[in-house]
Amino acid sequence: MIPEKNVDFLLENGASFLALADAGCDIAISSRIRLARNLAGTPFPSSADADCRRVVAERVVSAVNSRSFGGKLHLFEMENLPPLDREILFERHLASREFVDRPQGAALIVREDEKLSLMINEEDHLRLQAISPGFCLRELFASASAIDDRLAKKLHFAFDKKLGYLTSCPTNVGTGMRASVMLHLPALTLSGRIGATIQGINKLNLAVRGMNGEGSENRGNFYQVSNQSTLGESEEEIIERFSAVIDQLINFERNARIQLLEKDRYGWLDFVGRSFGILRYAYKLTGNDALNYLSGLRAGVDMKLFDRLDCATVNTLWLSIQNAHLQKLTGHILTGNDRDIQRAALCREKLRAGM
Amino acid sequence: MIPEKNVDFLLENGASFLALADAGCDIAISSRIRLARNLAGTPFPSSADADCRRVVAERVVSAVNSRSFGGKLHLFEMENLPPLDREILFERHLASREFVDRPQGAALIVREDEKLSLMINEEDHLRLQAISPGFCLRELFASASAIDDRLAKKLHFAFDKKLGYLTSCPTNVGTGMRASVMLHLPALTLSGRIGATIQGINKLNLAVRGMNGEGSENRGNFYQVSNQSTLGESEEEIIERFSAVIDQLINFERNARIQLLEKDRYGWLDFVGRSFGILRYAYKLTGNDALNYLSGLRAGVDMKLFDRLDCATVNTLWLSIQNAHLQKLTGHILTGNDRDIQRAALCREKLRAGM
Repeated sequence: MIPEKNVDFLLENGASFLALADAGCDIAISSRIRLARNLAGTPFPSSADADCRRVVAERVVSAVNSRSFGGKLHLFEMENLPPLDREILFERHLASREFVDRPQGAALIVREDEKLSLMINEEDHLRLQAISPGFCLRELFASASAIDDRLAKKLHFAFDKKLGYLTSCPTNVGTGMRASVMLHLPALTLSGRIGATIQGINKLNLAVRGMNGEGSENRGNFYQVSNQSTLGESEEEIIERFSAVIDQLINFERNARIQLLEKDRYGWLDFVGRSFGILRYAYKLTGNDALNYLSGLRAGVDMKLFDRLDCATVNTLWLSIQNAHLQKLTGHILTGNDRDIQRAALCREKLRAGM
Repeated sequence: MIPEKNVDFLLENGASFLALADAGCDIAISSRIRLARNLAGTPFPSSADADCRRVVAERVVSAVNSRSFGGKLHLFEMENLPPLDREILFERHLASREFVDRPQGAALIVREDEKLSLMINEEDHLRLQAISPGFCLRELFASASAIDDRLAKKLHFAFDKKLGYLTSCPTNVGTGMRASVMLHLPALTLSGRIGATIQGINKLNLAVRGMNGEGSENRGNFYQVSNQSTLGESEEEIIERFSAVIDQLINFERNARIQLLEKDRYGWLDFVGRSFGILRYAYKLTGNDALNYLSGLRAGVDMKLFDRLDCATVNTLWLSIQNAHLQKLTGHILTGNDRDIQRAALCREKLRAGM
């Protein structure tokens, strides 16, 4: 694999985690399985110096081949990428905040459809990710697991018979697996029931975060739910238990939408209508505002309130209104104010075309 | 004059104070001259009982004839009007809050174009009003003064050679005249300069109020400026001095718009664009919100940002989104929530048709 010099080719695709799935993507936007693995007898990335990290990266990259990933691969050496390109990878959910912020010796391998990727030297030596639109954890685990098996034949993973996979952070010890689902919960949020819902989820030892993962807040009524502990259960058991909760959450949101339509039909229509009106005609939009209005647009599409506006247009906007994507698109490094102006211009244009 | 049983026929007209003037109505929306007169030797309405007030009303009504007002007249006996109809008169700027709220023995005479009207038994026995779109105090004073002269031949007004006309409230003693201009000042408001401007106006002994007169707050960036004292100057002098201030305020606003367009072009366009987008697509609108967005729409029309939206559509909406007009239009007494829904429906419909 020859390292990529920039991420421009990625921008020609809609990102995998938002691409249209066949069905059932109206509340569960995307699912993700991530496996954490470390090389035995090698210090964790956080306690390794840059040289040691580079050696690890070389070992892992040479163990990977396209065949094992089932498609053409791209390699990014993070320290050689321009900062804006690293942000693009973050916005496309291919790299974590921590990974982007500590690029020394870090590398990213991405399958061309972006559904499979491997962060090398994030918190652990390997973070293998399978991501897809919709609610499909079992399938994602199957494909991540198959790659994990192939890699294990070439790399010696740190594994303890009693504990399972050893990881940098104790919460990942065990299966090393984290399952997460990104949910769009506008009705639970608008009806003020999201607080109690999140409390309930937390009691089940699941974490609820904003759309950009750890430390991020609710933006645009998106919530990322993930399992917290991975010890003492098999991957299948975790996914089984976790999926049952997600199923329930999807039902909660679906019922909240029906109830809102019954009890405050015009309040709900107003949320959708204003969202469209503002995105269609505003000349300045902050990122957070845009996400909130896109949530209204998406709710309207789910409810078939628009004749011609489709999910693909909303997804394109979701991706491209983000700071780094916006700057790549315009070809300029922009100040906050100019980003707000360009973001509004993009929304006006796409929604004029999309209607 | 036969008293009118209701105000329905008024609803077929655009109200005079908002009707389109030939030109120059972009900042000074309307002008008003009001003359306060009292019958000599008769207690002021506030200290008169209902019977005494009714006698005054009869005397004044019989002194009025259509010829003296230059057009067909309508008489409303306020205590016989349904409450909603009284509110309609208030919203059309034909009756004051106080007048509407104390209907005993109160009567209103309105010329059919609504540009001349006479409140009988408001704070004073007579409050003669001349109102018109645009900035035209001199013309309004001339027409109010001509009617005043004709009424003076039939009614004996309380007048002191030294003080001038005697009125219920000392601030009106003298000419008994109040001149006021309704100004639309979105740029001064948005740029945060309205506070200092109002302070400056107050120092000149002029009052600044919201669009609904005394006690009302800024709504939709409308301000009503009026003279405070009427003693020691002739009407012409007051109007001269007052008009010079209004001219200056109009220039302040015009310059503020130019500056906003130069310094924060997109912020200003955003104000106009969002206003349109929300009015065009919202499903719930409070009265205050609607007025604020109509201010943005009006600013856009003034700046010729709309191809097909015209001032008449904005004026129609201004009038008809008000609580009483809205209820008359739908033919139902509505709760606050239902008014918000109907207000939004009206805006969506008018703006769909107007574009």
